[in-house]
Amino acid sequence: MQENQEKARRPRVVPRIVIVGAGFGGLAATQALARTPAEVVVLDRRNHHLFQPLLYQVATAGLSPADIAWPIRGILRSQSNVTVQLGSVRGVDLSAREVMVGDARLGYDYLVIATGARHAYFGHDDWEKFAPGLKRIEDATTIRRRILLAFEMAECGRDPAERRRLLNFVIVGGGATGVEMAGAIAELARKALASDFRHIDPREARIVLVEAGPRLLPSFPPELSEFARRSLEKLGAEVLLGKAVTGCDADGVAVGDARIEAETVIWAAGVMASPAATWLGAECDKAGRVIVERDFSVKGHPEIFVVGDTAHFSEGERMLPGVAPAAKQAGQYVARVIDRRVRGQKAPAPFRYRDWGNLATIGRKSAIVAMGRLSFKGWLAWVFWSVAHIYFLIGLRNRIVVALNWLWSYVTFERGARLITGIDAEDVQASRDALRKAS
Amino acid sequence: MQENQEKARRPRVVPRIVIVGAGFGGLAATQALARTPAEVVVLDRRNHHLFQPLLYQVATAGLSPADIAWPIRGILRSQSNVTVQLGSVRGVDLSAREVMVGDARLGYDYLVIATGARHAYFGHDDWEKFAPGLKRIEDATTIRRRILLAFEMAECGRDPAERRRLLNFVIVGGGATGVEMAGAIAELARKALASDFRHIDPREARIVLVEAGPRLLPSFPPELSEFARRSLEKLGAEVLLGKAVTGCDADGVAVGDARIEAETVIWAAGVMASPAATWLGAECDKAGRVIVERDFSVKGHPEIFVVGDTAHFSEGERMLPGVAPAAKQAGQYVARVIDRRVRGQKAPAPFRYRDWGNLATIGRKSAIVAMGRLSFKGWLAWVFWSVAHIYFLIGLRNRIVVALNWLWSYVTFERGARLITGIDAEDVQASRDALRKAS
Repeated sequence: MQENQEKARRPRVVPRIVIVGAGFGGLAATQALARTPAEVVVLDRRNHHLFQPLLYQVATAGLSPADIAWPIRGILRSQSNVTVQLGSVRGVDLSAREVMVGDARLGYDYLVIATGARHAYFGHDDWEKFAPGLKRIEDATTIRRRILLAFEMAECGRDPAERRRLLNFVIVGGGATGVEMAGAIAELARKALASDFRHIDPREARIVLVEAGPRLLPSFPPELSEFARRSLEKLGAEVLLGKAVTGCDADGVAVGDARIEAETVIWAAGVMASPAATWLGAECDKAGRVIVERDFSVKGHPEIFVVGDTAHFSEGERMLPGVAPAAKQAGQYVARVIDRRVRGQKAPAPFRYRDWGNLATIGRKSAIVAMGRLSFKGWLAWVFWSVAHIYFLIGLRNRIVVALNWLWSYVTFERGARLITGIDAEDVQASRDALRKAS
Repeated sequence: MQENQEKARRPRVVPRIVIVGAGFGGLAATQALARTPAEVVVLDRRNHHLFQPLLYQVATAGLSPADIAWPIRGILRSQSNVTVQLGSVRGVDLSAREVMVGDARLGYDYLVIATGARHAYFGHDDWEKFAPGLKRIEDATTIRRRILLAFEMAECGRDPAERRRLLNFVIVGGGATGVEMAGAIAELARKALASDFRHIDPREARIVLVEAGPRLLPSFPPELSEFARRSLEKLGAEVLLGKAVTGCDADGVAVGDARIEAETVIWAAGVMASPAATWLGAECDKAGRVIVERDFSVKGHPEIFVVGDTAHFSEGERMLPGVAPAAKQAGQYVARVIDRRVRGQKAPAPFRYRDWGNLATIGRKSAIVAMGRLSFKGWLAWVFWSVAHIYFLIGLRNRIVVALNWLWSYVTFERGARLITGIDAEDVQASRDALRKAS
């Protein structure tokens, strides 16, 4: 770091571009800067890039974390103008043009912020401990542990009401993550675990997906939303539409006036951007996204760019959606803007989002696809979904391993990663008691 | 559990065999009891059986936890006389013939204890936090995190002495685990990570294997021990023989009169059996192993058996070694003893250990094999080692995935699971400070 501090004071030979966050946006920007005569520094709190669209499969024991995560250093190894640094950004000194990383400062000429988002609990941050969201690897292994432990505890439970509560799973939020989680848990209970227990029948598990809006997957055409709802019900999940969660504790959730007793509640609703707007003192929307200019720069700071889930970018009346392709395209565009400026060329043509369409999967062999006017559903859509996701994975090894896992579970209904880790049996009761106390 | 308590009081139609621990010994006993007219209850603190011989590959980012662990329920799914229960044993009530599990009690007619061992710190249990051992999945992911973080911290370190300290790795204990860890870390540093950093050269990492005895791998013929030592040195590791670790803190270890400054210390020395001897009030050896009779039963308790790393079984002057095949054979033998007793038949012929030989691997493509008078080494031994280990893995899926991973890293030198999980960059310093404070 001290080296970097010294560098910050010395005039730099080539400009330094600091990229904060190696998600889809940050990584795309970095890779698009490969030929730019600049020093690129990638900062991330984690050593890995995570393929979030498949994180729900880690949470439901289908894949291992390493199947969908890659060391950032490994991805950028051969890009010689890049340095990768593990570090947590505390703020930005706009006048000195320095990023505060841990105890150190790192000067920049251009700054790209791509720090993503977390789930929002609508002002009830205390719900998070009862209803974890799904953004990081640890979230996925925590949810996996909770789901599998619920079945284990039901197996040796004494009280029938408590057993039922243990076998109730509530997923809050009917977007892609919520739908995919509900489908995967339903199949886990009805297929993979079906004959593993002696005192309970996992098929009696109740999986409830709660969505406050009038339909699931609002970014899809209504008929596909309806198909997703019916498919989930066919898998044995219940779908509650137009119902908001109004309370959440260690024993369940309140949905409107009703209450669902449940051991396992998973949060897949709402989005809150990373605190980038606070670092920058920039204008933001209600979800904390920085409102960016037409080139993703921050008002009054043409050297600072924000992309991905942390940015609010409007195309006319539409906001750029918070999906991986949008973040990638924004990252690539910003790289072009910076590259041209570094070379003293004029700015590129305005950004235009190429909407490649929307995909979501429901269970082991059904999906929905909406691409412009084209939309299809069912098994063919699932094949398309599978191929697309394998294509977007990084590295041949991961593609083979994930494809193999999917083929395997398609044929056998098995889940290969049914591990309860991070807790011993004797600690289970203690951790539940602690949670109860907190509610 | 209450059900079980009731059952414990009711006279049972068929005898109940309780098996504590689903490692190699417990699982082998359970599977060998498949046709026994009895109710078999398997208790484990974890929901998974772990293939410990490959755990070092998880610790060095070669494999994922799920590649070498399987849900116990899944393995025993089709064995209809078995119930699997997640639970932690607190003790045994010998007179009531009940196992105390959490708050409940579980009656037994026959009890098989196969609860394994942990590393021993020779009376210095406080060293464990500085020098973790390698027995559970969490141990492996912790060690993986420490190894990878050491490189990350060295990359942004300011002080050359501190950088060198961060790149020093000490492995204590020259048995199979120690040798395999040292070889795997050396290759990680010299191959997989070689071109990933900009400010450090991972090839400058110093890997030191410390063994108090006169040679590595004492269970092998001396010439193979010597081959292993030379192979490790060729991979770039240092081997210190006849040197005992006399101190251990957050900054390094004391080896005799010398001191090695090191961020990462891994413990692979000494064995301490699980507290089964305390539960049973039975005679044990210095390592806490229960001294068992010729049929693995506990003196004065012909209905209680102890197998695996928790048992001390003597064949003449030789003690049964603490390896997977010995645990498996003991488990199968005990199952036969119980089966015959349940059926009112006479006891089987005395136990005879079939020693299939000893294997250990050094790095990515060398190994040593000692089978009776036959011994071989090098690449051919490594192929033999690989095939043997894949054969003993459970399930086709895991065999394919592990084989694929090995082939991949054989060809590319890559490690697929280089994930730092369980900690955020901002917490690294805090956790190091806490460790320093403790030393």
